[in-house]
Amino acid sequence: MPELTALPAGELSALGAGALALGIRNGTFSAAAVVRSCLDRISRVEDAVQAWAFLDPELALAQAHAADQRRAAGTRLGALHGVPVGIKDIIDTADMPTENGTVLHAGRRPTADAAVVARLRAAGAVIMGKTVTTELATYAPGKTRNPHNPEHTPGGSSSGSAAAVAAGMVPLAVGTQTNGSVLRPASFCGVYGYKPTFGLIPRAGVLCQSPAFDQVGVLARSIDDAALLAGQLCDGGGAVMRDAASADGTPPKIAFVKTPLWDRVEADTLAAISGLIDHLGGAVAEVAMPSAAAGVWEWHRTAMEAEIAANFDAEWTQGRDRLSASLRGQIERGRAVLAFDYQRALAQIAVVNAAFDALYAQYDAILTPAVAGTAPRGLGSTGDPAFCTLWTFCGMPALTLPLLSGANGLPLGVQLVGPRLGDARVLRVARWLADAAHDA
Amino acid sequence: MPELTALPAGELSALGAGALALGIRNGTFSAAAVVRSCLDRISRVEDAVQAWAFLDPELALAQAHAADQRRAAGTRLGALHGVPVGIKDIIDTADMPTENGTVLHAGRRPTADAAVVARLRAAGAVIMGKTVTTELATYAPGKTRNPHNPEHTPGGSSSGSAAAVAAGMVPLAVGTQTNGSVLRPASFCGVYGYKPTFGLIPRAGVLCQSPAFDQVGVLARSIDDAALLAGQLCDGGGAVMRDAASADGTPPKIAFVKTPLWDRVEADTLAAISGLIDHLGGAVAEVAMPSAAAGVWEWHRTAMEAEIAANFDAEWTQGRDRLSASLRGQIERGRAVLAFDYQRALAQIAVVNAAFDALYAQYDAILTPAVAGTAPRGLGSTGDPAFCTLWTFCGMPALTLPLLSGANGLPLGVQLVGPRLGDARVLRVARWLADAAHDA
Repeated sequence: MPELTALPAGELSALGAGALALGIRNGTFSAAAVVRSCLDRISRVEDAVQAWAFLDPELALAQAHAADQRRAAGTRLGALHGVPVGIKDIIDTADMPTENGTVLHAGRRPTADAAVVARLRAAGAVIMGKTVTTELATYAPGKTRNPHNPEHTPGGSSSGSAAAVAAGMVPLAVGTQTNGSVLRPASFCGVYGYKPTFGLIPRAGVLCQSPAFDQVGVLARSIDDAALLAGQLCDGGGAVMRDAASADGTPPKIAFVKTPLWDRVEADTLAAISGLIDHLGGAVAEVAMPSAAAGVWEWHRTAMEAEIAANFDAEWTQGRDRLSASLRGQIERGRAVLAFDYQRALAQIAVVNAAFDALYAQYDAILTPAVAGTAPRGLGSTGDPAFCTLWTFCGMPALTLPLLSGANGLPLGVQLVGPRLGDARVLRVARWLADAAHDA
Repeated sequence: MPELTALPAGELSALGAGALALGIRNGTFSAAAVVRSCLDRISRVEDAVQAWAFLDPELALAQAHAADQRRAAGTRLGALHGVPVGIKDIIDTADMPTENGTVLHAGRRPTADAAVVARLRAAGAVIMGKTVTTELATYAPGKTRNPHNPEHTPGGSSSGSAAAVAAGMVPLAVGTQTNGSVLRPASFCGVYGYKPTFGLIPRAGVLCQSPAFDQVGVLARSIDDAALLAGQLCDGGGAVMRDAASADGTPPKIAFVKTPLWDRVEADTLAAISGLIDHLGGAVAEVAMPSAAAGVWEWHRTAMEAEIAANFDAEWTQGRDRLSASLRGQIERGRAVLAFDYQRALAQIAVVNAAFDALYAQYDAILTPAVAGTAPRGLGSTGDPAFCTLWTFCGMPALTLPLLSGANGLPLGVQLVGPRLGDARVLRVARWLADAAHDA
């Protein structure tokens, strides 16, 4: 279905967020024209992609008209003035429903914007609508399909955010990642996904699933756009993103880390990554994962399931029969976790981060698969998040770049990871990597 | 044993910290003379009181001589320049052992000062020595006796800190409170105990027992001295304590809260508190405890024991036979706590604090017993911490004032509590209360 991802040349919906913000600011085109173009794109592809949980064209257009009026009035314009952004439907919006991907929350209407939505409105963005999430941001899929092939999963849990950006319906979307929920769908849908360092983006008004790991992230069609959006959401983000743009072209030193999951990587993915590493030459050296990280997958599951059980207790109590079997299983296991094991798991976050200190003293970033392979066929599962688990557990900044593809022609992301608060550094490496890969 | 608490008139050891700091600063006497006077006092009463886990007179004197040399050299002097401070022996000191009240840590020598010790040194204080703690700051008593009657417990877990200040061995001491470990011994020993708002004093280098509740506090013989010491330890403490000193003499509005423990209060304590409230007249009104707080004692025990089990796992694994039966019991119960119940207990901290909002909107502080009665006879137990549990759970600032006494003539504290970050407010009420009570 190439028409779903081949962006229509000459139409505003095909432009990136930076170009749109600049054009609106300069008066080249209006915010209303941008939103109309995106709505037009949505009307053509949404039936096949199903990225939206809520979309009110009139509400989006009204925001665009208001943005145009503010510009006409000479108001100081924010960095995203008039730019449409999709918002994962576990992030509260005061003017749209937020249903968290479960029938138990059908019709739920928050009374206030989440902190990230408020920051977006302050930056002038048009809140385009709410994008499909899996059930309570866990594993049971929503209705969204992969725009590269609707018979394949878009990944999850930020399914609609990734698919909407990939299909050219919005230039930007916000997602969340508790395990692999931003980078996996980004990789499957062929867009950039970026999850900043744990704690940099406020979570007030975002569904609380597993507070030890819940992290807000962004999806875009370029590194610059991902950094532009993240810069508006992060505490002190503007400075980080300016620093991130100051690359001097010197090749970074990149550590290629296989992790214990290497045996799960599919053959065509192995070949694609090997080819990329060969192409990058001396910039990349294979480095063993610190042994202190070996238990991370178990610790992450223990702590995440314990927190899911506690945070979804109301849903469990009131309507467990309307939860998916997979979520019921998570909650049942989580209810049985001992506080002793829970605390021990959380205590490892600092230990594992410290174990990476020596690596980050020698290398600018880690390169590692974002996924085991391209998006699996079928819509019954959103795929395996395990390639993101270690980095999410640590709260390290992580980015996936859609630089590769599988034997089936579907996109495949490459993951870059940096030390906590090393966001500018990992973005600089990402810019270098994207350039170097495109030189291939 | 009145000689243990009747401070020797005319000797420097009998002065408070503020007077000592002023005298040293002005050259009225030297830091060395102050420390020698305290060492002399210690030599006369320590056999009976047993407040010290470690005391090296030469090391204390060397710090005093260095302080006098810094003053002679014209160095800018800190607020506690030359003033001796006792440090509970669960707080790390780079130049003295820190044995945490357990034979399992005998001979333990930290390599760095705890953050609070570093702040004290920066303020010019003389680290006098390490004061006796109960076993790992839990319930099993150390060797310390109550200076008001050595046949009675000094309370715990900051047993030595309270007794040393009460017996005039140091004007100031640092303790910690996870349940009632500063205010209970302060009440039993007849000194001021003050535990600032949770989080205001850094805990780096302090034994981690139950991180949800572990809080550093101070012991002194006046409110001014307690505020002086706390001001050096709290983040931004100087400003808080200046604000606390700005009382205008207007009577505050005080809520008298009985809590569900009222039935446990001993008859003479009931009479003493009733007498005080009658004396205060219209300033005090009885207010019911918010019902949301009813479960606090169970939530506190659940979370604290779960955290003790996790944080003392090395001691449990390596030497449970050398732990007390009471601590073994806490750890065994803590190991069985479910993560679900642990998280639910912690989630109530915010809920219960919010339930007090309406009360604090109408009243400046809460007045409530600090203990069920005077120090119990015998050294086998440190007494009942339950009268501090609610406020420690909430992380509210709490202070005990030695304004009353029991039928046996032993001292009895009155507890004042304020809203989180309302430290200046509760200290202002405390000054008013101390004045009003002394007018009786």
